[in-house]
Amino acid sequence: MTTQQLIQQIRHKKSFLCIGLDVDLTKIPKHLLELEDPIFEFNKAIIDATHDLCVSYKPNTAFYEAYGLKGWQSLEKTISYINKKYPEIFTIADAKRGDIGNTSTMYAKAFLEDLNFDSVTVAPYMGKDSVEPFLAFENKHTILLALTSNEGAFDFQTKINPEVSGGQELYKTVVKTAKTWENSQNLMYVVGATKAEYFTEIRKIVPDSFLLVPGVGAQGGSLYDVCSYGMNDDIGLLINSSRAIIYASTGTNFAEKAREEALKLQQEMEMILKQNNLV
Amino acid sequence: MTTQQLIQQIRHKKSFLCIGLDVDLTKIPKHLLELEDPIFEFNKAIIDATHDLCVSYKPNTAFYEAYGLKGWQSLEKTISYINKKYPEIFTIADAKRGDIGNTSTMYAKAFLEDLNFDSVTVAPYMGKDSVEPFLAFENKHTILLALTSNEGAFDFQTKINPEVSGGQELYKTVVKTAKTWENSQNLMYVVGATKAEYFTEIRKIVPDSFLLVPGVGAQGGSLYDVCSYGMNDDIGLLINSSRAIIYASTGTNFAEKAREEALKLQQEMEMILKQNNLV
Repeated sequence: MTTQQLIQQIRHKKSFLCIGLDVDLTKIPKHLLELEDPIFEFNKAIIDATHDLCVSYKPNTAFYEAYGLKGWQSLEKTISYINKKYPEIFTIADAKRGDIGNTSTMYAKAFLEDLNFDSVTVAPYMGKDSVEPFLAFENKHTILLALTSNEGAFDFQTKINPEVSGGQELYKTVVKTAKTWENSQNLMYVVGATKAEYFTEIRKIVPDSFLLVPGVGAQGGSLYDVCSYGMNDDIGLLINSSRAIIYASTGTNFAEKAREEALKLQQEMEMILKQNNLV
Repeated sequence: MTTQQLIQQIRHKKSFLCIGLDVDLTKIPKHLLELEDPIFEFNKAIIDATHDLCVSYKPNTAFYEAYGLKGWQSLEKTISYINKKYPEIFTIADAKRGDIGNTSTMYAKAFLEDLNFDSVTVAPYMGKDSVEPFLAFENKHTILLALTSNEGAFDFQTKINPEVSGGQELYKTVVKTAKTWENSQNLMYVVGATKAEYFTEIRKIVPDSFLLVPGVGAQGGSLYDVCSYGMNDDIGLLINSSRAIIYASTGTNFAEKAREEALKLQQEMEMILKQNNLV
């Protein structure tokens, strides 16, 4: 999918919501556990109930690998279902991979080619040759961790690097450096919502890039703050929500309740888009 | 496995060799491709031919995920085969994972509990709460990326952080910070062999920890340099070799040739251990 197609979808649906499919068997409705593939059945119901309110789904691979072979199969079925039934959806493999060049190529093929996700999240620690293999795929996107939404983000990401005049935090070095890599037009960045003031800093470096924003809701970030600091003329934001939507109910009405939660966020987003004359 | 058991195994086998099981179907002997599970059959033959010359096997998960469900099955069969037939071997899931707390717990369970690896490699970018879930497993080990063996290591890992008196490279901040985390006794570190001079710096911070060292051989690092700067009284090193051993031949004699290459390294290691009065 091209970035333009993503932007068109956002304008059409009046939503920049991404739903995280982080399926934990201990948290899903009990009646699903009797089915052959509870994870896929859960995802399918959530997707069918919310696809017109969101523009993206993001399974985190940890939740699938945790169930071994069966989990991997559920992931394959989930992405294949989305690609077939809702091809307009922007899919994200939240895998946070990254390795030396030839090994990153294996990961890139697995997620962007074989599973056919539109994008994959990648960790920057190993630098250029660990990320460029992902960037090489045309009309696919690499979402680089810049500033994450967890407490540990302050351990290294916000530490200052003095080699730049005036000093500069690591996350800025990461984003500025990544911009110089080959096919950097295929980059997006993860920026946590728990630190809305940082969006101003990020936007000085990458005014045009899309930012994937976890941490709204359950982790305490404010949608309005994120939008007022992070939105650009092409919207430029994908706001992720996982638990608040997919675990809205553990009853047989879980999909309906998930839709209600997604609708609340979509309506807030529509209002923000209108206020900013973006739709 | 405890660290003491690993050290005993090293002294017994006079080897601190780790063999990387990075299986690429385009590089393995053609006659294996007719079998039902070529990846597992390749690994099994390599393992049976080399288990007395090495102390550790390290499958890189990228090479298994690249083959989807079948690849994940080959990984399961490989770790299960090693654990059953050669329980003395220290197993490493080279997965380079790391995510927010509850998600890292899912990865940790997948690799350390369900697949039952002795250890897993983890990326440090997301900080403390992304790593501690791995450290919580008793007699299991978390191998944190410190200084990797690729070119991209110079993009961020060697950048200087001035908040410490005199300034300090990021990889040092990572290792010093990680030492303060809960259950840090379960930490080991990845330090690439391509930069032997850095081992002196690392040893000032973690004199006693084990270091997993990629980059000897194919990537150009010298075994003697690494040992003279990085070895400690408990040896403290696991030297990884992948391609030079497992792809020594593409004929039907591939396992025999792999053994020959492993033996060369084991003999060099035995000589170094004797020179240092460690066996």
